[in-house]
Amino acid sequence: MRTRFFNARILTMEPGKEIFTGEVWVKEDRIIFAGTEEEARTYCDSHQDAILVWDREIDCKGNLLMPGFKNAHTHSAMTLMRSKADDLPLQDWLGTQIFPIEAKMTADDIYHLSKIAIMEYLTSGMTAAFEMYLTPFSVADSFRDCGFRCVQTSCVNNFSQSVELLERYYNELNGRDEYNSFILGVHAEYTCSKELLEQCAELARKYKAPFWAHIQETEKETKECQERYGMTPFEFLDSLGLFEYGGGGYHVIWTNEKDREIMKKRGLYAVTNPGSNTKLASGIAPIDQYLKDGIPVAIGTDGPASNNCLDMFREMFLVTGLAKLKDMDASKVDAGEVLKMATVNGAHAMGLKDADYLAEGKLADIIMIDMHQPNMQPVNNIVKNLVYSGSKSNVLMTMIGGIIRYEKGQFNIGADPEEIYAKAAEISKRLYS
Amino acid sequence: MRTRFFNARILTMEPGKEIFTGEVWVKEDRIIFAGTEEEARTYCDSHQDAILVWDREIDCKGNLLMPGFKNAHTHSAMTLMRSKADDLPLQDWLGTQIFPIEAKMTADDIYHLSKIAIMEYLTSGMTAAFEMYLTPFSVADSFRDCGFRCVQTSCVNNFSQSVELLERYYNELNGRDEYNSFILGVHAEYTCSKELLEQCAELARKYKAPFWAHIQETEKETKECQERYGMTPFEFLDSLGLFEYGGGGYHVIWTNEKDREIMKKRGLYAVTNPGSNTKLASGIAPIDQYLKDGIPVAIGTDGPASNNCLDMFREMFLVTGLAKLKDMDASKVDAGEVLKMATVNGAHAMGLKDADYLAEGKLADIIMIDMHQPNMQPVNNIVKNLVYSGSKSNVLMTMIGGIIRYEKGQFNIGADPEEIYAKAAEISKRLYS
Repeated sequence: MRTRFFNARILTMEPGKEIFTGEVWVKEDRIIFAGTEEEARTYCDSHQDAILVWDREIDCKGNLLMPGFKNAHTHSAMTLMRSKADDLPLQDWLGTQIFPIEAKMTADDIYHLSKIAIMEYLTSGMTAAFEMYLTPFSVADSFRDCGFRCVQTSCVNNFSQSVELLERYYNELNGRDEYNSFILGVHAEYTCSKELLEQCAELARKYKAPFWAHIQETEKETKECQERYGMTPFEFLDSLGLFEYGGGGYHVIWTNEKDREIMKKRGLYAVTNPGSNTKLASGIAPIDQYLKDGIPVAIGTDGPASNNCLDMFREMFLVTGLAKLKDMDASKVDAGEVLKMATVNGAHAMGLKDADYLAEGKLADIIMIDMHQPNMQPVNNIVKNLVYSGSKSNVLMTMIGGIIRYEKGQFNIGADPEEIYAKAAEISKRLYS
Repeated sequence: MRTRFFNARILTMEPGKEIFTGEVWVKEDRIIFAGTEEEARTYCDSHQDAILVWDREIDCKGNLLMPGFKNAHTHSAMTLMRSKADDLPLQDWLGTQIFPIEAKMTADDIYHLSKIAIMEYLTSGMTAAFEMYLTPFSVADSFRDCGFRCVQTSCVNNFSQSVELLERYYNELNGRDEYNSFILGVHAEYTCSKELLEQCAELARKYKAPFWAHIQETEKETKECQERYGMTPFEFLDSLGLFEYGGGGYHVIWTNEKDREIMKKRGLYAVTNPGSNTKLASGIAPIDQYLKDGIPVAIGTDGPASNNCLDMFREMFLVTGLAKLKDMDASKVDAGEVLKMATVNGAHAMGLKDADYLAEGKLADIIMIDMHQPNMQPVNNIVKNLVYSGSKSNVLMTMIGGIIRYEKGQFNIGADPEEIYAKAAEISKRLYS
């Protein structure tokens, strides 16, 4: 499949590169050219073998092409519990609404329920998700069948999965197909015994692999770990050797200076989930402090029972908005930094080193943003527009690995949306009866 | 114009009424029927003169009809400064970016710039705006020409407009056309002399009219008033007799118990603007406390230079989300309360008593929400879906006074969107040169 985009504004996200007008050429799953019209002509002249036969040529009409957003933390199949468990205290939410239903979900349920989330990612211009849920094989099947890029980690804990399964996921999901990969991780310190974590540390060493977990999402979790081990979760996990090859944490709200020292030393990522942290009243992450400390931040939606919206535009606004509120200073966390978190940093955190920039040789994970809608007008500053006034409704197209999976409200994911909804309704009826 | 909607889910927003499936009939600017199919048949049998000839019949395909959102505080023409003045401390924002540009704007500029905001309101399912800006006549023209319902208040202060103009606006804009009305108000305590406010109080008494202003948006504003008069803005304005016939305040963040006593006693509305308050780091309004005190809350976007998004879905999420964060309690401010704020309370605050419910005899200010998008699936709880996972992208149609002004991405506002954008770009170029 060869696609030529022309008459586009192009935001490559490469450091220091300004938005320009030009063309993007895609061949199979890669970008083979991104430049001005002038550069396109030069390219043709110097590459006599240049591809001039296109399967499709798309007039972008001045709309914006940019790298897709990376959803750096989610639990997709929790679409099942969306709007079923809101406005409750956190412990009630988990204990009475989430855990009992999860106990009844099958791998097949999870396969089907994940698809609703995948569709929602596409509508919000996301091209990859950093996923954690109960049945990694059926999750991987769901993402593969929809043609959506998925990096999984496990939710190993004392009650489900195991170190043996973790190693199996790692070996079997990496390289299984072009859409899926797997990174080592556990659910969280508070759901894992010390022995279990020590076994995970051995695995991390064996594979020289980065390691991930929910870390310091709530004050309670942080304090209880301190009571248990005399250390915060970051200190404790690091003391076991889990971060020798990097990795990071999801949520990462309640960190102190010592935690941030560890994060810097180990090159760990902080994945922030402001929608979930707001709705579940978990707190506001110290994003401005992370920037000052040089700790890279990526952005995730968390699962649809926690947020409940899987929308990178909402998350981007919240990242900077909450940072401003936290310090009562409207100058905190510039929009440009936020956009980098939602794209480049997400890709790097997830190990997708070829999905960071819109540039020659990179994966064709590209979105088109409608600049002809009123929320993008006047076109004073496109980066600020994206972060502050952008919306799902601006996403005209989402391309993953060179294939357009969403375009003007229509999905190309190998299944009919209404059938996906009907299947979810059927599962919901069964599990909630 | 007679329109019949059928096969719809219907949320009337009437107290205690559940969502049902049925039909809505519109004749001219009013709803003449809203009920189940069964009730529709009975209605036809008992009304021999029932309208059975429709200009248009719309199969809603199970999508949701509900009253349009009411944007209870905005400054529409500030689209000009959108994305021009972000990530700055508040005083720099006002002093170097907003005031100098406003000083150069003409009434005609404001007419054109307002239209971009009106378009954005339509995309977000809003059917009315509570507007405050520099040139009420040209603002009213803009809203009338687009066919969008507008309630204006003035921004009288020591430097612009006057009490004489305020009275003229009141007399000339009320009843001028079917889209515009006007309510007494000033910019804020801190921009008005005591004499000016006393003259306004005379007007409020003369017309037995409610009174509005920006009130206690920042801690600084509140403290400085206390230093000036030994009273908070609420206390001070009330002491001058401005609230004898009700009204309310915009933002209303930094209130104490005594302020809330005044609000209760005078039946004042609190219009909350969480997007703006977040981005400008003004603080978090005590919404849960207002609910406990029985103070009615409505929701506004504030202007597009402050927010920068004119999106009721973002605001609704923030109203409840920030209330949860403020008290670190995920059970605070139920989604149902938020939806009431965004519709019914907004209408009542703005004096639009016929725009509150989707019911017989009410204004046909109706929106259609797409339930076939993934963020609304599974359909576990529609009210929670709207507040937590809803998005602009779900707005299929916005009807005001029986006329569809926005449908599936297309506008019907008497002007071409691209011409509106070109005009705004031209104004921007002139004013920023």
